[in-house]
Amino acid sequence: MKSMNIGVIGGNKGSQKDYKAAWELGRLIAENGWILVCGGRAGVMESACKGAKEKGGLTVGLLPGSDTQEANQYVAIALPTGLGNARNVLVVRASDCLVAIDGKHGTLSEVAFALAEGKKVYGINTWDIEGIEKVRSPQDAVERIKRYCERKSI
Amino acid sequence: MKSMNIGVIGGNKGSQKDYKAAWELGRLIAENGWILVCGGRAGVMESACKGAKEKGGLTVGLLPGSDTQEANQYVAIALPTGLGNARNVLVVRASDCLVAIDGKHGTLSEVAFALAEGKKVYGINTWDIEGIEKVRSPQDAVERIKRYCERKSI
Amino acid sequence: MKSMNIGVIGGNKGSQKDYKAAWELGRLIAENGWILVCGGRAGVMESACKGAKEKGGLTVGLLPGSDTQEANQYVAIALPTGLGNARNVLVVRASDCLVAIDGKHGTLSEVAFALAEGKKVYGINTWDIEGIEKVRSPQDAVERIKRYCERKSI
Amino acid sequence: MKSMNIGVIGGNKGSQKDYKAAWELGRLIAENGWILVCGGRAGVMESACKGAKEKGGLTVGLLPGSDTQEANQYVAIALPTGLGNARNVLVVRASDCLVAIDGKHGTLSEVAFALAEGKKVYGINTWDIEGIEKVRSPQDAVERIKRYCERKSI
Repeated sequence: MKSMNIGVIGGNKGSQKDYKAAWELGRLIAENGWILVCGGRAGVMESACKGAKEKGGLTVGLLPGSDTQEANQYVAIALPTGLGNARNVLVVRASDCLVAIDGKHGTLSEVAFALAEGKKVYGINTWDIEGIEKVRSPQDAVERIKRYCERKSI
Repeated sequence: MKSMNIGVIGGNKGSQKDYKAAWELGRLIAENGWILVCGGRAGVMESACKGAKEKGGLTVGLLPGSDTQEANQYVAIALPTGLGNARNVLVVRASDCLVAIDGKHGTLSEVAFALAEGKKVYGINTWDIEGIEKVRSPQDAVERIKRYCERKSI
Repeated sequence: MKSMNIGVIGGNKGSQKDYKAAWELGRLIAENGWILVCGGRAGVMESACKGAKEKGGLTVGLLPGSDTQEANQYVAIALPTGLGNARNVLVVRASDCLVAIDGKHGTLSEVAFALAEGKKVYGINTWDIEGIEKVRSPQDAVERIKRYCERKSI
Repeated sequence: MKSMNIGVIGGNKGSQKDYKAAWELGRLIAENGWILVCGGRAGVMESACKGAKEKGGLTVGLLPGSDTQEANQYVAIALPTGLGNARNVLVVRASDCLVAIDGKHGTLSEVAFALAEGKKVYGINTWDIEGIEKVRSPQDAVERIKRYCERKSI
C-alpha cells in the first residue's frame, strides 16, 4: 500500500503561532511515516516542511513556477508545474486529506476545491467554511487523520 | 479590442429565485455584447445561458468531461476539458470578472481562486467571503461591471 | 446536438503556402457550420481564423497567457488559460478532430496528444508521424471530416 | 541547491530490451543522487522505478487518475492528478531533462512538449524526431545529463 499523502495548505505570510503549528504538524506527519504535500513556498508551507525534514520525513512541493529554485529549502522533492495558482488543484488532487492553517484566498481555493472533490479538510485558525473540520491543534488534526483517512485508505 | 468575458458561476441545483436571477443576468450580459463564460452544466449555469441565448448572446461552457453532449442546451460553444472540477480554474482564467449566484463548494473554489488571481467577483445570494462584492440584483452586478471592468479593460 | 469543434493547429511562423491552406481551411470550417478551435495566436492559427471569420464562422482561441489581447484579431472568443504551452492539451480536448498544417514541436505535441486520446488528426505539410492521416488540401481534409467525424458524432 | 529531477518517459508496454534499459537507467539515476520523475504506471516507467528503488533512489509518479493505488509498486511518491493523459505536461514541467525509451503517442506528446518548452530529451530506441538527442545506452544518457543538465543547473 502506498504511503498517505497529507496536504498542508496555508498562507505564505502568517503569525509566529501559525508557523509553530505548521512546524509541529510537519513533525507529526513525518513521525507517522506520511508524505507531506504542499505548494512548496514560504510561510506555513515552509514551516511545515522544516518540521517534517527535522524528523526525516519526505516533503513534496508542487510549485507554481517553472524552476525548482523557488521551493523553500526544506522541500525534498520540488516539482515545478508552470501553472501559477492553478497548481492549487494539484496540491488537492495529490493529497489524501488536508490540513489548512491560516491562509488567504489561495488557501480558501484549496479548501473549497478539496471539499468539492469530497476530501476531508482539517482547519487550524483558518477560514470558517461549512464542511471544514475545525481542530484545536496539530496533534488533534493528526489523531483525526489516523481515524478518518487511514480507515478510508484500507 | 476583444469583447469582455463575464464568468457566471453557481450551483447546479438552486432555487427558482436563483435561477431567475441567473436568467436575468444572462440576458443583460448578452444585451451588453459581452460573452458569457461558465462551466456549461445545469442549474445557475443553464439559466444564465438560456437568458443570454434569448438575447442573441454567445455562451461558452468549459466542461469537466470529454464530451460536448454534457453541455446544457443553451451553450453555443461547448469545450470539453477532461479535467473534472479542475476546469474551475479555467472558468476563472477565461473571465474578465465573475458573478456568483448561490453555489456550493465548487462555486466557492471559483470565487476564491478568482480573488487569489486578483479578479473582481460580484455575489448574489452566495458565499459571504471577504473580498466578494455583494450586489442586490443582476442589474446591480451589470452596472458595477460596466464601471469597474470596462474601465480596467480600456 | 452540439456543433462540431474542429481544431486547427500549426506553426506561428510558416510559409505563404501554409497560410493560404489555413485560410482556405478556415473558410470551409465556417461554411460547414463548424466551430474553429485553436491556440489563438499568429501564423497558421491567425490565417485559419481570418478565413473562418470572413465566412461568418465562430473562432475560439485558447490562449497560453492571461490576457485576451494576445489573441489574433480574428479570434471571436478569446479564452486566456495562463497555462503556457500546457494549453495545447486543451486545444486537443476541446476538438472533435484536428487538422495540422506545418508546425514545430508545439504542434507535434498537439498531434501526439490527440492521437494518444484517440482523436483523428489530418495533416497538411506537417509532421510525418504514424497515426496522422495525410491529406492533399483543405478541401480533402473537410471531406474526410464530414465522413469520419460527423458519423462518429451521430 | 535542489536535486535534479530526471524524467523517464516511455511505453507502458515494451520489449525486454527496453525494460532492461529502463531498469539500468533507473539505477544510474539513483546512483547519481537524482530524483526519478515519471507517469507512475507500468512498462518502461515501472522498470525504471524498480532500478532506482534498488539503489535507494527517490521515485515520483505523476498519475493520470485520482488514486495512489494505480502507481506501480516502485513509486515512492505517488501523486494523483486526475488529469488523464494531460498529466504528461506535468511530467515534463517537473523534469530538468528527460530520457525517452520506446513509447507510443503518449510518449511522443511528452517528447514534443519537452522540446517545445526548451528542455533536453535523450532518446533510446524511441521516436526519431528532430530535436531529440539519440543515445546508445542508459550510461550514455547519464554521461550527457551530467555534462549538459548539471552545467545548466549551476
